[in-house]
Amino acid sequence: MLHSSPPQFIDQLETPIPLVDLDRLAHNLDRMAAYCAVHGLALRPHVKTHKSPRIAAEQLRLGARGLTCATPRELEVMAGVCPDLLLAHPPVGAAKVRRVLGLDPSARLTVALDSLEALEPLAEAADAASRPVDVYVEVDVGMRRVGVSTPADALAIARRVRALPPLAWRGIAFYPGHVRQHLSRQDEALATLRADLSAHLALLGDAGLVPDVVSGGSTPAAWRMHEVTGVTEVRPGTYVYNDRATVELGACGWEDCALTVLATVISTAVPGQAVIDAGSKALGREPLPGGADAGYGCVLDRLDVPVVRMSEEHGILDLRATDWRPRVGDVVRIVPNHACIVVHLNDVMQGVRGEVVEATWPVTARGRTMPQWATP
Amino acid sequence: MLHSSPPQFIDQLETPIPLVDLDRLAHNLDRMAAYCAVHGLALRPHVKTHKSPRIAAEQLRLGARGLTCATPRELEVMAGVCPDLLLAHPPVGAAKVRRVLGLDPSARLTVALDSLEALEPLAEAADAASRPVDVYVEVDVGMRRVGVSTPADALAIARRVRALPPLAWRGIAFYPGHVRQHLSRQDEALATLRADLSAHLALLGDAGLVPDVVSGGSTPAAWRMHEVTGVTEVRPGTYVYNDRATVELGACGWEDCALTVLATVISTAVPGQAVIDAGSKALGREPLPGGADAGYGCVLDRLDVPVVRMSEEHGILDLRATDWRPRVGDVVRIVPNHACIVVHLNDVMQGVRGEVVEATWPVTARGRTMPQWATP
Repeated sequence: MLHSSPPQFIDQLETPIPLVDLDRLAHNLDRMAAYCAVHGLALRPHVKTHKSPRIAAEQLRLGARGLTCATPRELEVMAGVCPDLLLAHPPVGAAKVRRVLGLDPSARLTVALDSLEALEPLAEAADAASRPVDVYVEVDVGMRRVGVSTPADALAIARRVRALPPLAWRGIAFYPGHVRQHLSRQDEALATLRADLSAHLALLGDAGLVPDVVSGGSTPAAWRMHEVTGVTEVRPGTYVYNDRATVELGACGWEDCALTVLATVISTAVPGQAVIDAGSKALGREPLPGGADAGYGCVLDRLDVPVVRMSEEHGILDLRATDWRPRVGDVVRIVPNHACIVVHLNDVMQGVRGEVVEATWPVTARGRTMPQWATP
Repeated sequence: MLHSSPPQFIDQLETPIPLVDLDRLAHNLDRMAAYCAVHGLALRPHVKTHKSPRIAAEQLRLGARGLTCATPRELEVMAGVCPDLLLAHPPVGAAKVRRVLGLDPSARLTVALDSLEALEPLAEAADAASRPVDVYVEVDVGMRRVGVSTPADALAIARRVRALPPLAWRGIAFYPGHVRQHLSRQDEALATLRADLSAHLALLGDAGLVPDVVSGGSTPAAWRMHEVTGVTEVRPGTYVYNDRATVELGACGWEDCALTVLATVISTAVPGQAVIDAGSKALGREPLPGGADAGYGCVLDRLDVPVVRMSEEHGILDLRATDWRPRVGDVVRIVPNHACIVVHLNDVMQGVRGEVVEATWPVTARGRTMPQWATP
């Protein structure tokens, strides 16, 4: 780590700023890697959560098979540390297709898609560029977001891919983002998922198209993917940091929340509340699953103090359930509802152990365009 | 405008990306400037909405008295175009105070605050640095966010400021962000605001402390500030772009919405909806005032098509109220609920007229820290 003169202790930092507890991060990385190793699942973490090549490199060191990305920028940054990248978001539109196919040719590129309309222009451009691209067909297993609804549709796309070299059909992908019940109440959603997946695999098998890869994902459901026959790969993202929503779902404990936002109390003028300098532009306005009035985060060591309202640069701590009376200047750590949004809202992360700032890194893969042609 | 080789037409752009309709922007800038000129109100626009020195420069060219900022980064960027800056957010904590006082000494700096706890360390540091700082005392007029609750509290802070050179007391500031009813139903909130403000001004006047400046703000309420006796200055931000929430409040029409997010349909696999590539990381998850299930934005030329659900990089268009059946590859412009969040989520804006991209500029003042000491 080279710095010119960074702050060395947390109390020297300007707020608001995201902190990453490096011990918790390491524990989270180890835990998922071990789960996948024990169950023979390939781990292809989604980088959307951290957008950082240094954390991706650590995931790969611990055994990840490759990485999952959602944007061209994420692909481009991660190509620097990984030769096997999945774009889990169909590149549609000439500009995006061109950019994706311009990825370092030494990287193996896989794309997940759910339509012939997305497939055909990609195939044409890949052919023109002589760029091999592997394809997962995205299937819906109950989330109702993207993914073909029937095995026949999946089969039709898979067959079409096989007729379009340099594209190659690798398998199917699904996203169980709807399995958002508490872990202990996921059985019904998993039963539906199993049935849908079996139907897809049966038809593909009958057609002689047994997939190499069946790729699932999402942190809360990842821990149960070994119970779903046929799944070969998982794509969790949030597990590196975890967050208040992940705790609520039972997929981690508070002690596993590695990401907090350091904030300073700036006003206590209105009774019953304290105002911090982290609002929707630092914390994000993300709901808890199923929790309408739970606020947008809570104080790490005072879980009964939620951020109950926000403006762009103000967060309102509700003090009604606590005897704690913070003063202007007090510093708190907020556990956000959703870690991935916090990372995207901020530019720089501080890696900490105890009160010491050990590392500082930019959110390298945030942003979208290559701004070299932009003018101030 | 210098570009190396930017896209020149909207259909060449990679999505998602924010577009600014330059004609609408110019109209919005003119309209607020004219309102303030007609009513003799000083205009000190809040730069949080655009975070762009080029738009700030245009606001100043049209007569703005100075600029309002919320973060040190905004102050630093705007010091390049404006010698009169208000930080409408108390700088609390040694690092932030040091950074704020390090602002270009040729700029006049004003700070709004509501406590002696925020005032004293600022005064000490300003004295040590021999840095003049003007102070507004923040008063609450009904929003219950920040601001002293009683005229006596405001007077106490104003008196203390006068005892702490190089600080200088300039006046009072309030934020009528709670005046979020439709313009036609704001009368009651404005009556309360008038009464609160009168009480403050009466006590200050009795004490011989008539404020030079009484600074109000917020786009929806700005248009009625000439009806509030004593107000000398307004600090609207959103008016440059406007958004779906501003339309809902009656403070602009759809034809005044200058900011949209260009997005591409990437999936129609699930019936009754279309999925676009703009989700919570491009549009923000901001509610409409009072509208629980109104979604997070809507299609510009199809106002009956809302973005009803989102993931980080997916937005779900609800097609139930329309006969329109978009296809994968179709491009839409989304009017976001809240323009200021969209700007903060993105890095680059495209200025357009019709289908032509005329200008490209970075969101210069987004971000917080000076990342030169960060390592990848």
